Amino acid sequence: MAQRITLLTDFGTRDGYVAAMKAVISSICPNAIIDDASHEVAPGDVVQAALALRRYWKLYPPGSVHVAVVDPGVGTERRAVAASADDRMLIGPDNGVLGLALGAATRFNVVALTNRQYQRDAQSATFHGRDVFAPVAAYLACGVALQELGVAITDPVQLELPAPEIRESSVRGQVVYVDHFGNLITNIPAALLGTDPCVALNGRNVAVRDSYGHAGAGELLALVNSDGLLEIAVRDGSAAAELLAARGAAVDVRNEKKAGT
Amino acid sequence: MAQRITLLTDFGTRDGYVAAMKAVISSICPNAIIDDASHEVAPGDVVQAALALRRYWKLYPPGSVHVAVVDPGVGTERRAVAASADDRMLIGPDNGVLGLALGAATRFNVVALTNRQYQRDAQSATFHGRDVFAPVAAYLACGVALQELGVAITDPVQLELPAPEIRESSVRGQVVYVDHFGNLITNIPAALLGTDPCVALNGRNVAVRDSYGHAGAGELLALVNSDGLLEIAVRDGSAAAELLAARGAAVDVRNEKKAGT
Amino acid sequence: MAQRITLLTDFGTRDGYVAAMKAVISSICPNAIIDDASHEVAPGDVVQAALALRRYWKLYPPGSVHVAVVDPGVGTERRAVAASADDRMLIGPDNGVLGLALGAATRFNVVALTNRQYQRDAQSATFHGRDVFAPVAAYLACGVALQELGVAITDPVQLELPAPEIRESSVRGQVVYVDHFGNLITNIPAALLGTDPCVALNGRNVAVRDSYGHAGAGELLALVNSDGLLEIAVRDGSAAAELLAARGAAVDVRNEKKAGT
Repeated sequence: MAQRITLLTDFGTRDGYVAAMKAVISSICPNAIIDDASHEVAPGDVVQAALALRRYWKLYPPGSVHVAVVDPGVGTERRAVAASADDRMLIGPDNGVLGLALGAATRFNVVALTNRQYQRDAQSATFHGRDVFAPVAAYLACGVALQELGVAITDPVQLELPAPEIRESSVRGQVVYVDHFGNLITNIPAALLGTDPCVALNGRNVAVRDSYGHAGAGELLALVNSDGLLEIAVRDGSAAAELLAARGAAVDVRNEKKAGT
Repeated sequence: MAQRITLLTDFGTRDGYVAAMKAVISSICPNAIIDDASHEVAPGDVVQAALALRRYWKLYPPGSVHVAVVDPGVGTERRAVAASADDRMLIGPDNGVLGLALGAATRFNVVALTNRQYQRDAQSATFHGRDVFAPVAAYLACGVALQELGVAITDPVQLELPAPEIRESSVRGQVVYVDHFGNLITNIPAALLGTDPCVALNGRNVAVRDSYGHAGAGELLALVNSDGLLEIAVRDGSAAAELLAARGAAVDVRNEKKAGT
Repeated sequence: MAQRITLLTDFGTRDGYVAAMKAVISSICPNAIIDDASHEVAPGDVVQAALALRRYWKLYPPGSVHVAVVDPGVGTERRAVAASADDRMLIGPDNGVLGLALGAATRFNVVALTNRQYQRDAQSATFHGRDVFAPVAAYLACGVALQELGVAITDPVQLELPAPEIRESSVRGQVVYVDHFGNLITNIPAALLGTDPCVALNGRNVAVRDSYGHAGAGELLALVNSDGLLEIAVRDGSAAAELLAARGAAVDVRNEKKAGT
């Protein structure tokens, strides 16, 4: 079976930084298949990367290796870590970029990457993607045991998304993510929606639909998205642009009666 | 031989939607090699995706599997389909995104994806890329027969590009595509060009050249492109910007005498 | 061991041009693993592509095949070439895009791609990525010898970056590259920096730090980057935007005493 490694960065591709990571990986583990997850994370946006990683890492098969490098603190004392989590591997700086994945794991073991034997000999202060994370990913994919890579730690940086405020017949949540389409993804899970909920953002009431195509062209709608979260969208358009809304915008749900009651 | 699967979407990469598709594929068919075709199709632009797909699907070897997900109608009654066409597989929503490829095939068989056994158990209403198309691609790549996936249909949605109007000594066509470089690709095939054709767009006469490099820097030119179609370009620049032209702009060719007469 | 081919172009991905290259490669060499280096090189920017290629080609293992197609002269008399350089293969137009890689090689052999047997039968005048470079890459990856592809040449186009001016106690260099983050990469190697150098650009003095994270948020800094070159950056920001600086901007280093003296 092919060793599978995914890469998630904020590097863009045009400078060749990502290609340098792929080069290091394939020089160590020549048969590894490298899947680009994304290199278009907004520069330094650890939360955006953590949310993207959460969307795919566990759908990959056991044994897969997932690298996430959004690393504004590279070259400082921040730790570099690798983790075994629910039979997948996670690698990155210990700044929260792995935090949502670790938080979603049933169990995990984490090591700080202190063993320079599995890293590039000459290390820069600015590009640990190439010098630390890529070689570690390649060695893990090709069979090196996690505990060989460094010392076990028990306090990796976690990342908590804001929780919605649950009131008697309403919920106040917020936009936690704006996606490529301008869809506004909230922190309100479907379980908190009543049978006929009223959704509002920035004073605008938003009709709940089953899917984008159930709204008219250009119409604002709310739906339960593919992660089971309330999402606000515009059919064939951008809700972020239409509502001038960004991460952090408050979203209110008023339930006539709660689901299941 | 490696199983090869290509992905074409309008998802962008930064949200992890594409990576979720790759995850599902590799969990079902671990040795599949996944080639990114593009994830930068303009949101919802079925015609753009269909034109891109037409450019590569048949150049891939027999047995290759091509997924195209530009799917504004996801979650509605639009069908999801898979096709065997000239020994390659095509998968996507039945909204025309596969239409130009099917139209270019010598023969094809199409099924509606009604067999949930080859799809994810829990299906969202908004992300059939992950829940339907990715698993179907993986099962096809790993040897499941097309007819297992659902019921045969004979009326997949076709896509017709506008035909040029052919007159006695002239042709009126139009821009059907604007590419990454701002090149204006028309619906006028080389066979409709006389030996010394005059080309005009928006009242501007455009000199015909053999290639971009045969024009001066910044010069407007027309040429026969790599698909055998008349294309209008600016050397080291963007014809779309220079001529303020977009999809649908009329292009006139006046032939002194037609080729071969 | 998998045959590994990297692709670097200015094509973008959305038009399917890159996918057509991948298709041709996989039809000739079905097990090749194709790594996208980048398709986001600025249109026609040969220097940008050459700098990116230099960053990764030699980190790939021996036997790897590296294609770089930034080719504004396609269809003219410019040569198409392939080279064996330090046990890797380099393929592209002979316009300098391979020049920095060749310049960094200990030894190389170059052929002009004159043997049409290893190219597509029908060749367009505008898309040698598909018709010439992709098939050549695939044949090389699958074992065809370099000398089979054409006639040996000894004068491939080289690319020289401007050298810094070295004075008694100072160095005047320039910005040779602006990366994805807006970092300004200069042509001044670390060896030309004294023990406590003063760095200035556009009349602004820039403090030297060990890494981005050693500066305060939004602070301007200079550092030695992952290629061993002086780089000017803004922590969590863009130095290019902050200093309104682009390729060619002068950078001055004043050394109180030179390193090692």
